[in-house]
Amino acid sequence: MSREVVKKGETVVLIDTSYRKYLVHTGGKTDKIKGVGVLDPTSLVGISYGMQIEVGSKKFWVLKPSLMDKLQCLKRKTQIILPRDAAQIIINCAIEPGHKVLEAGIGSGALTIALANAVAPDGRVVSYDKREDFIKHALKNLKTVKLDKYVETKNRDVTLGIEEKELDAIILDIPNPWDAVGHAWNALKTGGYLCTFSPLSSQVEKTVREIKKHGYIEVKTIENIQREIIVSEHGIRPSFNMLGHTGYLTFARKILL
Amino acid sequence: MSREVVKKGETVVLIDTSYRKYLVHTGGKTDKIKGVGVLDPTSLVGISYGMQIEVGSKKFWVLKPSLMDKLQCLKRKTQIILPRDAAQIIINCAIEPGHKVLEAGIGSGALTIALANAVAPDGRVVSYDKREDFIKHALKNLKTVKLDKYVETKNRDVTLGIEEKELDAIILDIPNPWDAVGHAWNALKTGGYLCTFSPLSSQVEKTVREIKKHGYIEVKTIENIQREIIVSEHGIRPSFNMLGHTGYLTFARKILL
Amino acid sequence: MSREVVKKGETVVLIDTSYRKYLVHTGGKTDKIKGVGVLDPTSLVGISYGMQIEVGSKKFWVLKPSLMDKLQCLKRKTQIILPRDAAQIIINCAIEPGHKVLEAGIGSGALTIALANAVAPDGRVVSYDKREDFIKHALKNLKTVKLDKYVETKNRDVTLGIEEKELDAIILDIPNPWDAVGHAWNALKTGGYLCTFSPLSSQVEKTVREIKKHGYIEVKTIENIQREIIVSEHGIRPSFNMLGHTGYLTFARKILL
Amino acid sequence: MSREVVKKGETVVLIDTSYRKYLVHTGGKTDKIKGVGVLDPTSLVGISYGMQIEVGSKKFWVLKPSLMDKLQCLKRKTQIILPRDAAQIIINCAIEPGHKVLEAGIGSGALTIALANAVAPDGRVVSYDKREDFIKHALKNLKTVKLDKYVETKNRDVTLGIEEKELDAIILDIPNPWDAVGHAWNALKTGGYLCTFSPLSSQVEKTVREIKKHGYIEVKTIENIQREIIVSEHGIRPSFNMLGHTGYLTFARKILL
Repeated sequence: MSREVVKKGETVVLIDTSYRKYLVHTGGKTDKIKGVGVLDPTSLVGISYGMQIEVGSKKFWVLKPSLMDKLQCLKRKTQIILPRDAAQIIINCAIEPGHKVLEAGIGSGALTIALANAVAPDGRVVSYDKREDFIKHALKNLKTVKLDKYVETKNRDVTLGIEEKELDAIILDIPNPWDAVGHAWNALKTGGYLCTFSPLSSQVEKTVREIKKHGYIEVKTIENIQREIIVSEHGIRPSFNMLGHTGYLTFARKILL
Repeated sequence: MSREVVKKGETVVLIDTSYRKYLVHTGGKTDKIKGVGVLDPTSLVGISYGMQIEVGSKKFWVLKPSLMDKLQCLKRKTQIILPRDAAQIIINCAIEPGHKVLEAGIGSGALTIALANAVAPDGRVVSYDKREDFIKHALKNLKTVKLDKYVETKNRDVTLGIEEKELDAIILDIPNPWDAVGHAWNALKTGGYLCTFSPLSSQVEKTVREIKKHGYIEVKTIENIQREIIVSEHGIRPSFNMLGHTGYLTFARKILL
Repeated sequence: MSREVVKKGETVVLIDTSYRKYLVHTGGKTDKIKGVGVLDPTSLVGISYGMQIEVGSKKFWVLKPSLMDKLQCLKRKTQIILPRDAAQIIINCAIEPGHKVLEAGIGSGALTIALANAVAPDGRVVSYDKREDFIKHALKNLKTVKLDKYVETKNRDVTLGIEEKELDAIILDIPNPWDAVGHAWNALKTGGYLCTFSPLSSQVEKTVREIKKHGYIEVKTIENIQREIIVSEHGIRPSFNMLGHTGYLTFARKILL
Repeated sequence: MSREVVKKGETVVLIDTSYRKYLVHTGGKTDKIKGVGVLDPTSLVGISYGMQIEVGSKKFWVLKPSLMDKLQCLKRKTQIILPRDAAQIIINCAIEPGHKVLEAGIGSGALTIALANAVAPDGRVVSYDKREDFIKHALKNLKTVKLDKYVETKNRDVTLGIEEKELDAIILDIPNPWDAVGHAWNALKTGGYLCTFSPLSSQVEKTVREIKKHGYIEVKTIENIQREIIVSEHGIRPSFNMLGHTGYLTFARKILL
C-alpha cells in the first residue's frame, strides 16, 4: 500500500481514542488546542496519514478530513442540522454535482458544508441569513474545510424574496418557512425541490397548508429517527442513549401551472 | 421563467396524480406501458417540462428524471437498499464526487445508482455480484437512467477477495459480510470507510466482532427509521402505515497499523 | 397436572393455528361462525381446556378466555384503543381493584373491558357516549366477556358536564377533550388522574394548553410505539410490518387549589 | 368536595415542583430526608391531602401514594423494569385480581410492586431470587408501600426448578431465561402465560428457540418504545431526550400437549 504523508499547508483531522475529532491546520503556530493540548502544527508535516501520534499523554490518529470529519468538527453557534438529516435532504431533493441550491438560514454552516460537498465541483450553494454574525461564523467554518469557494452568502431575509431563479433546490431552516414558500415557487426551476426543516409539528402543519395553496406536487413530510446499536461481548442491543427528535422534513416539488 | 421542452432521445419521467412514476424513453416505439397505457413516446417530444398531459383517461406530469425519480422507477428483482438508507451510507462513508467505491452485491442496482450519482462526474463505482443475472438486470436499470458509464461490474464473489486497491469506500450488502471484512481492509485506502448492510441483528453481531479483529476505528452501527407525517384538514399526525425495519448499517474506518 | 373440562354455559375461546381467536358460548345453537365453520357449541362441553380440536378441516385450541383473548375478539364498530395503549392508561392512571373510573366515549368498549378487568371485583367503570348505538354495541361486547356488571353506561355528552364525583380517574377518548378538561377537574378526587387519547398532535396541543389553565400537576404526554421482533431460523430482526401510530396519551393529576 | 386529611400512621407522598417524589411515613421520627430536608413526619398529620406545604424553602404537594408514586419512589439497587414495560407485561400476560404469578428474579422489587397491585386483593405473587440481599432490599421496598402481604419471596434459582404449580403467569427477568423455559412449562396452568424480559436481542433469539422446542403457542416478541411529547408556548414536538431502549419482551402461552 502506498503511504501518503502530511504536506505543509494541509489541514488534518486528529482523532482521539474516544473518536473525538479536531481539525488542525499544519500551517498554524504552536498553540493550546482544547481537547488536544499544546501542539506545534508544523510538527505534523511528514507524518504518514493513518498513523497514531502522541500529544502529551493522549494519542491521536492523523487523517485527511472526510466530509463526516468536517461536519463533526464544526464549531456550533446555533442548533445545527445533523448529518443524518442533511443526508435525507440531499437525497430527497435529488441534489448532485452541478446543482444550484439555496438555503436559508445559514446557521453555523453545517448543512452548507454538506450541500457544498454534494454540488461540487461545478455547482453552487447560495446561503441567506438575516444575521451577519451567523454568516461570518459559518464562513469561518466553511473556510476551515475549504468549501467556501462553492458558497455565496447573502445577508438577506428569505421571507422578503429570493433573487435567484431556476434553482434546483431550496432548503428552508427558518422559524416561519410558510412565509417563504411562495417566493420559493418563483425561484425554483421546473421539477425543482423545496425542503423545509422544522422541529415543531405545529410549524409543519402551517407550512404544508401554505405549500398546498401553490401548485407543488409530491408533498410529503418525514421524520427521520436514528438509533445506535451497541455490540458488546455480552451481545447486541439498541443504545440506551438516544436523541429522540431533531426535526421534521417536508419536501415538495415544482411543476408548470 | 424559461421553458424547456422535451428533446428527441431524452428519457422523461411521467408522474401520475398518485405520484406513481414511469420512466419513458422518447426514442422508443408505441407500446403499452404498465400503469400508463398505450403511448407513442415520440409524441412527448416538444412538450414543455413540467406540464401535465393526458394518456387515455389518466393524467401525468412530464419531468426530467431526478435522482429520486430514477431510484423510485427502478425495476426490482431483489430486495433493494432504499433511498433513506442509501443517503445514510453516502454521508457516513463521506462519498463525494471523484471517489472510487466498491459495492457487493449489485442486487437490482438501487444503491449503485445512488453511488454513481454521488461520485460523478469523475469518480467510479465498482460493483461485484456472484450472480450474472443480477448484474445484467442492474446494468439495464443503470442504462435506463444513463449512469452506467460510472459503473464497472464484475461477476465475482467478494468473499473470495477484492482486486481493487486504495478504495475510498466499500459497501457490503451480502448475507455474510464478515467473510469480506478482511479483504476490505486490504482494499481500502487509509481513512477509507467500510459499510455493511444487514437486516438481522445476529448478522450485525458477527460482522462487528470480525471488524474488531482488524484495526478499524470509528466502528458504529445504526438503525435508520423513517416515519411519514400526515397533514390533513383535521390536523397532523404520524402515518399509521410504516415500514418497521429495513436493515442495520455498520460503519468502520481504516487507519494505518 | 389437573385437567379442567369445559362446563355447560361457559364461554370459550377457539384459537386457530394462525392464532386468530373466536369466542364461543357453549350454550348457543349450531351455527356457522365466520372463520371457524359450522359448529354445535354444546359439543365443546366436556373437552379438556388446552386441547386442540378439529372443526371441519381446521384445528383450534380450546381455552378459557383471558383478558387478551377478550380484547382481541372484540367486535369493532369504531377505531379502538389497543391493548398496548390501554396498558399505559391503566398504569399511568394508577388504576387498581376498587377504583371508580369514568371513560368517554365508550366506542366499541375495548378500553372499557380493560378498565373493568382492572377495577374488579369491587370497583366500577362509568362510561359516557353521545351515541346510543355505540353504547348498545359496546354493552354486547361487555356481556360476551361477562364484564358488564362492572360497567354503568350513560348516553351523555361528557363535554356538557360530569355527574360523578370523587373519581379515581377519567379517560377521555373524544375528538375535543379540551372541552371536558374543566368538568374532569370537578369530578376527580384529589390525587386522581386525567387521561386524554388523541391521534393528532394538534389535538394534544390544544388539550395541554387547556389542562395548564387548571391546577393539574404532573402533566405529560407520551407516544407509545410497539415493534414486533421476528425470530426465524436465519436470525432476529424487527418486523417489516409496523403500525406507525395509534395516538398520543396525555396524563395530568388533580391536587387541592 | 370532601376533604380528607392525613391520619397518623399513614404513608404519604411528597411531590416537589419538579415532580420529584418522596414517600414519608407519618409515624417516623424527625430526620433529614434527601431531597426534602429536615422534617418531623408527625407534623404532616391533619394536613388536607392535595395541599402544598413548605419544608424549609421547598414546596411539596402531599398526596396519598398511587401505584405510580410507589413505583417512582422505589429505591433502586439494580436495573429495574420500568412502569411502561410492567404495563405491557401485565396486559399481555392477562394478569388480573386473583391471579397467582411467579417472577424471577425479584431485583429491586419494581415489577413485584406492579404485579402485587394487579393481583390484589385475593391473588398472590411468588418471587424467586438467587441473591438474599436483593430479596431483603425488595421486601423493604414492598413494605414501604404496604404490598408485601401479597408477595412470597424465595431464595431460589429459578433455573433449578419451580416448586409452584398451576400458575397463571411466570415472568423471567434473568440473564439466561432459556434455562427456565422448560420449568415454566411444568409450572404454568393450561392457558397460562410465560414472559421473558431481555435487553439483548441475542438473548431473545436463544430464548425463543428454546420456547419453540416446547409446546407453547402465541409466541411473540415486542419492543415497547416510549417518546415524551413536549408542549411549549412555541408549539409541540417530541422530546429531544429519550430512553432508546429498555428490553425486549417475549410472550408465550401454554396449552395441553
